[in-house]
Amino acid sequence: MHLLARLPGVGEKTAQRFALFLVAEGGDLATDLGGALAQLKELMRPCERCGNIAEVDESGHAVCAVCRDTRRDPGLLCVVARVQDLLAVERSGAMRGRYFVLGRLLSPLDGVGPDELPLVELMARVESDGVTEVIVATPPSVDGEATALLLARELAAAGIRISRIASGVPHGGDLEFADQITLGRAIDGRRSIDVPR
Amino acid sequence: MHLLARLPGVGEKTAQRFALFLVAEGGDLATDLGGALAQLKELMRPCERCGNIAEVDESGHAVCAVCRDTRRDPGLLCVVARVQDLLAVERSGAMRGRYFVLGRLLSPLDGVGPDELPLVELMARVESDGVTEVIVATPPSVDGEATALLLARELAAAGIRISRIASGVPHGGDLEFADQITLGRAIDGRRSIDVPR
Repeated sequence: MHLLARLPGVGEKTAQRFALFLVAEGGDLATDLGGALAQLKELMRPCERCGNIAEVDESGHAVCAVCRDTRRDPGLLCVVARVQDLLAVERSGAMRGRYFVLGRLLSPLDGVGPDELPLVELMARVESDGVTEVIVATPPSVDGEATALLLARELAAAGIRISRIASGVPHGGDLEFADQITLGRAIDGRRSIDVPR
Repeated sequence: MHLLARLPGVGEKTAQRFALFLVAEGGDLATDLGGALAQLKELMRPCERCGNIAEVDESGHAVCAVCRDTRRDPGLLCVVARVQDLLAVERSGAMRGRYFVLGRLLSPLDGVGPDELPLVELMARVESDGVTEVIVATPPSVDGEATALLLARELAAAGIRISRIASGVPHGGDLEFADQITLGRAIDGRRSIDVPR
């Protein structure tokens, strides 16, 4: 039960509820779930190339579906903080390149400095894939912006384009209810409208 | 009481609550409020130049504080849908120019076509002030985007820059919880990072 309570968002009460349910449950849920969890680490691993979640293949390697997709533009690399963010960008359908998961953001207050970030791996990836543009899709928070700037500095030597996702008023959002920083960025980041003829 | 119920967000029950409170209240609130409201239209009017809310001066004209502020850049004009949006942009502190309130958005489904928008007044304003850039700060909704495109087409003849506020992930927002359209726009609208040296 103390193991169940270590799941994110699960406290002692919920863990107890899970445990009592599993004990009382008529079928083989507890055994099946136990077996599936025991195998999980053998079957799923972070992708060796990008950090996305990936199935382990027969040869013991784990390469995710995005990295295996040959229709992707190898020159376009989207850097995200977490796998959740990768999945969110992927759902948007706007990314035709591949990804690199940092795993964490620069956070001096929590003791996460540049040395804790996989900068060497990122640089190696950029060089091996012939990347021409890195899109930094870290969140528009203090840590996310600091990380974006660090990456831009580190990658400046590679002589490639480094870009940042736009921050602004979300789709369907109301200017009246947007916070001041977001509105300020929406105005600073304005783009010329191209009129189709 | 039926007059109170016509206020936005006030239904019959709230109107009744207001009315009973005003009747029971010991002071002169009802009389004072009545007097203030009766004078309102004499003292406050939409600004003659931009449509912002403005006090009427001795000569009977109404020019708002933004239009009277001579430190503003007259070449930069921000077009908004409503006075609330103007106040929101003003709070962000990112706008050094002046404003133009449309009063409404293009909305074919509600029968609001181009003829219902103050395009002639906007064009006159652009010419009289020597405006060099119009920032269209209508909301990133279907109607707001349609209005932005209409304005861009109408103003194309003036040979000035016409820009649109950025749409993207709001400040402090999480990529994981951003909707797909917003994330798509954040990626399409990405900007190069300038590394300070």
